[in-house]
Amino acid sequence: MVEQPPAEQRRAEQAPAGFFYPRTASGRSSLLPAPPWYYSGDLLTVEYRTDPERVAALLPAPLTPAAEDPGAVALIWADWQSCGASREELLDPIRAQYKEAFVVVRCRFEGRTYSRCTFIWVDKDFAMLRGIHQGYPKKLGSIHQTRPHPMPQGAPQVAAGARFGATLAAGDRRLAQAVITLREPSESNGFVNGHPMAHHRWLPAIDRPGDAYVELISSGASQFAVGATYSADVDELSLFDSPTEELAELPVREIIGGYYRQVGVVWDGGRSLWHAPSS
Amino acid sequence: MVEQPPAEQRRAEQAPAGFFYPRTASGRSSLLPAPPWYYSGDLLTVEYRTDPERVAALLPAPLTPAAEDPGAVALIWADWQSCGASREELLDPIRAQYKEAFVVVRCRFEGRTYSRCTFIWVDKDFAMLRGIHQGYPKKLGSIHQTRPHPMPQGAPQVAAGARFGATLAAGDRRLAQAVITLREPSESNGFVNGHPMAHHRWLPAIDRPGDAYVELISSGASQFAVGATYSADVDELSLFDSPTEELAELPVREIIGGYYRQVGVVWDGGRSLWHAPSS
Amino acid sequence: MVEQPPAEQRRAEQAPAGFFYPRTASGRSSLLPAPPWYYSGDLLTVEYRTDPERVAALLPAPLTPAAEDPGAVALIWADWQSCGASREELLDPIRAQYKEAFVVVRCRFEGRTYSRCTFIWVDKDFAMLRGIHQGYPKKLGSIHQTRPHPMPQGAPQVAAGARFGATLAAGDRRLAQAVITLREPSESNGFVNGHPMAHHRWLPAIDRPGDAYVELISSGASQFAVGATYSADVDELSLFDSPTEELAELPVREIIGGYYRQVGVVWDGGRSLWHAPSS
Amino acid sequence: MVEQPPAEQRRAEQAPAGFFYPRTASGRSSLLPAPPWYYSGDLLTVEYRTDPERVAALLPAPLTPAAEDPGAVALIWADWQSCGASREELLDPIRAQYKEAFVVVRCRFEGRTYSRCTFIWVDKDFAMLRGIHQGYPKKLGSIHQTRPHPMPQGAPQVAAGARFGATLAAGDRRLAQAVITLREPSESNGFVNGHPMAHHRWLPAIDRPGDAYVELISSGASQFAVGATYSADVDELSLFDSPTEELAELPVREIIGGYYRQVGVVWDGGRSLWHAPSS
Repeated sequence: MVEQPPAEQRRAEQAPAGFFYPRTASGRSSLLPAPPWYYSGDLLTVEYRTDPERVAALLPAPLTPAAEDPGAVALIWADWQSCGASREELLDPIRAQYKEAFVVVRCRFEGRTYSRCTFIWVDKDFAMLRGIHQGYPKKLGSIHQTRPHPMPQGAPQVAAGARFGATLAAGDRRLAQAVITLREPSESNGFVNGHPMAHHRWLPAIDRPGDAYVELISSGASQFAVGATYSADVDELSLFDSPTEELAELPVREIIGGYYRQVGVVWDGGRSLWHAPSS
Repeated sequence: MVEQPPAEQRRAEQAPAGFFYPRTASGRSSLLPAPPWYYSGDLLTVEYRTDPERVAALLPAPLTPAAEDPGAVALIWADWQSCGASREELLDPIRAQYKEAFVVVRCRFEGRTYSRCTFIWVDKDFAMLRGIHQGYPKKLGSIHQTRPHPMPQGAPQVAAGARFGATLAAGDRRLAQAVITLREPSESNGFVNGHPMAHHRWLPAIDRPGDAYVELISSGASQFAVGATYSADVDELSLFDSPTEELAELPVREIIGGYYRQVGVVWDGGRSLWHAPSS
Repeated sequence: MVEQPPAEQRRAEQAPAGFFYPRTASGRSSLLPAPPWYYSGDLLTVEYRTDPERVAALLPAPLTPAAEDPGAVALIWADWQSCGASREELLDPIRAQYKEAFVVVRCRFEGRTYSRCTFIWVDKDFAMLRGIHQGYPKKLGSIHQTRPHPMPQGAPQVAAGARFGATLAAGDRRLAQAVITLREPSESNGFVNGHPMAHHRWLPAIDRPGDAYVELISSGASQFAVGATYSADVDELSLFDSPTEELAELPVREIIGGYYRQVGVVWDGGRSLWHAPSS
Repeated sequence: MVEQPPAEQRRAEQAPAGFFYPRTASGRSSLLPAPPWYYSGDLLTVEYRTDPERVAALLPAPLTPAAEDPGAVALIWADWQSCGASREELLDPIRAQYKEAFVVVRCRFEGRTYSRCTFIWVDKDFAMLRGIHQGYPKKLGSIHQTRPHPMPQGAPQVAAGARFGATLAAGDRRLAQAVITLREPSESNGFVNGHPMAHHRWLPAIDRPGDAYVELISSGASQFAVGATYSADVDELSLFDSPTEELAELPVREIIGGYYRQVGVVWDGGRSLWHAPSS
């Protein structure tokens, strides 16, 4: 009988583990635990109409524009705390807290309407890497939104008349800012971000132009718990130009409405909708 | 009649304004508005006993150690939103939100007991400059504490059994971390940080060793509104050494207790207690 | 003749462009330009031996340990300025400057020896996304290394006797630090990072455990220009444990050597070595 | 004979030490060592003329405008490495490296011309606290300037024809950006920042409006070593408005010139010029 060298043996027993980079024998240092992922947070949403052709220009094949109101856009800020199934991130909260701002439009594939995130900025690496898995086109940014608090000295409450501001910057440039005033409790949080997401997962080829991998996936919350929700007047929505961004290429033609909502979310994967023919 | 040059005249009319640096004609760019300052936030407190002589060693003249329990220390994390009287910072929240962690001991001056902050880390410049005014020995740090949220998917609530973590780092080193479990509603938030603060305002001389200005001041909240308050079990309190810090020089000999409290605060100046004889 | 709606037409003409996320009609907001990518920077390298089975445990199939000195590790700090072919990032340098620290080991595939990065931390989003393309397992970190400067008041020069420090932190914890003293000009910058890199490009499946895409690629500099290079004494190499990292699982058993090198690099893609059988 | 309690005794022996906050028995955790302070770095300077009355409006009593060219302004970016006499910060470089951008004008006091910094942004806490000592009105900002490197792949060299960019942001807004092209070696680095600085050291009163302490001080380098210096064409100088800044209130009427200089500096205190009458 042939004795295996111990190192070889150990390696065989310890197939690299971990949901995503880096993968090691134990998986302990993986930047992400395997889903499901759990989130609690506040969403500040402003919906508006832009030129429909600007939205259409952001939809790669095989997507087509939404049949109705194809110029509708949602610009959403979110202040999150999130964790994996162990919930250990919550007790070392630099691993749990992050903020994001993102642009959602709607599109169509095989007769169904989907939401789609076209631009998104986050402020943590684990959120960036989740984006690679989920097909969100994430960059790092600096995102802030007014935080409600039970004590009024330095904070609004989630109540009619309360005002919330939200700002987004990246590359040391302010890209967007909004101010809303809560109007009344609302069933709706808007309609643009209300469908399953349809996102492309691309991996450019290492040895030629074009992609090594192209997949269209659909994903959404496996559990979505709704807390306080208010409609809001949009006092300000400003988009600023930047040489490295195209958010301002979706100019505000008409405000649709504003919303503030507290949510709890579980995300646990999605479905594969389509693969590109090999190129 | 002598004509004044226009620039001179304008200057006379526009005496530089602004509460603190920078001061300009309009005062608009001052890093701080004049007090009062308004705060809403959550405090996570752990009280413990260290060697009394270590506390005494941190008390410069004319302060002396507290008469009772002179080794008591409070290590406090705070997650704040704050603003001036215009409240405009709340709608551009990068100007309003900050976090801090600080060490409080007690001391004695002219027969009264005071609290005193011996070490403090904050994560915004406006908080650092407030510290110069208030005599807090502020450094920049990276401070995090678990945030409660109404939706439980990724957050605890402020309720019995909920667990909160808190961490502090500076200079790319973790300095402290704590985990507490809320036990029951409490009237008290501890006793170490319960007195007016006694702080030294020092300004080193520009032309020699020693100080150009030394003042002992007392300050505290002009309004202090108390929200939900819980006593807590302290599951972990760890202090880590660093070549540039002395927090670990106050070792934990005995845990006194833990607390979680939501507060609203107004700060509007203080009193001058003592000036050093000219040196 | 059927008239196309203008939006549809425009979309057809504007196939989404951009090397990687986000992809738009113009490609202007893509976080990365298409390669080639250009770099100038300083590398501070410490090579050491750890337990060979620890290295082997980090090598997923189809890789096997290097035939000689299989426990050799290089821990490398780099202070970079980089850009695409337009060089426009250099004039808006928040887009060009970044730092990284990374761990390199060697491995074997089909009879050839490769270098492989097992852990890496960077401080910019464009560097993270490059990592997804190149198979580097990037996280965000805080990376610092002493910078040489012609004037000696606050800096060493790249010369014998000069001392350089390097530190790495992530998640508010110091993970590694090193101090080296330059000894003499050297041809070599060490041997561990001297081969083409062999990296896995993984994309986890969206709808099941396991991966949707697994590719082993090889890549290296298409141009590599060498400037000043010194061998160095390693005065300190410390690795610190963290609940979220496994760098300290590669303990320092024996220092091999230290190096300081100034380099100019062009990176322009790689080769595909192997694809996993469909799973 | 009366026995002193040991803690009291120890306290007497350990008069709190440390140059500035925090002060402890050992002084180890002080954010700043006592001067002298040592610096190596690169300065990118753009000089221009604005409306002289805008400069005059920034000069509080007892300063008056400069006799000649009173509207001259220097906007200076600096990329520094600095340390105290122990030089220990250089081996833990997060403690040594910082960047700043600042505005300098000239003024007059008792018949002499001084330089004066009216606005300044830095990116480290130790630099902010030095500013309190030196009378610089520091805020935190995000500052970047193109870094020269011996290898040209991703960097210019300090040589004729090389282009350098510089940017400044604070509060998530870009405040200024400049691009210069080096022309030829130069003796001069401009004239606006060429005098001793005249700065106010203010400490607002804790118990009333107005200041507890007002001193006008003069300071400058005790040693100033000049390296490579180039005059430069100013390809761009843009100032952007912000609700919290007044840099754009010094509009660019005429470009005077640009400069790039490598310097080594020692700073070791200054002189007291004037104290405000007690208020």
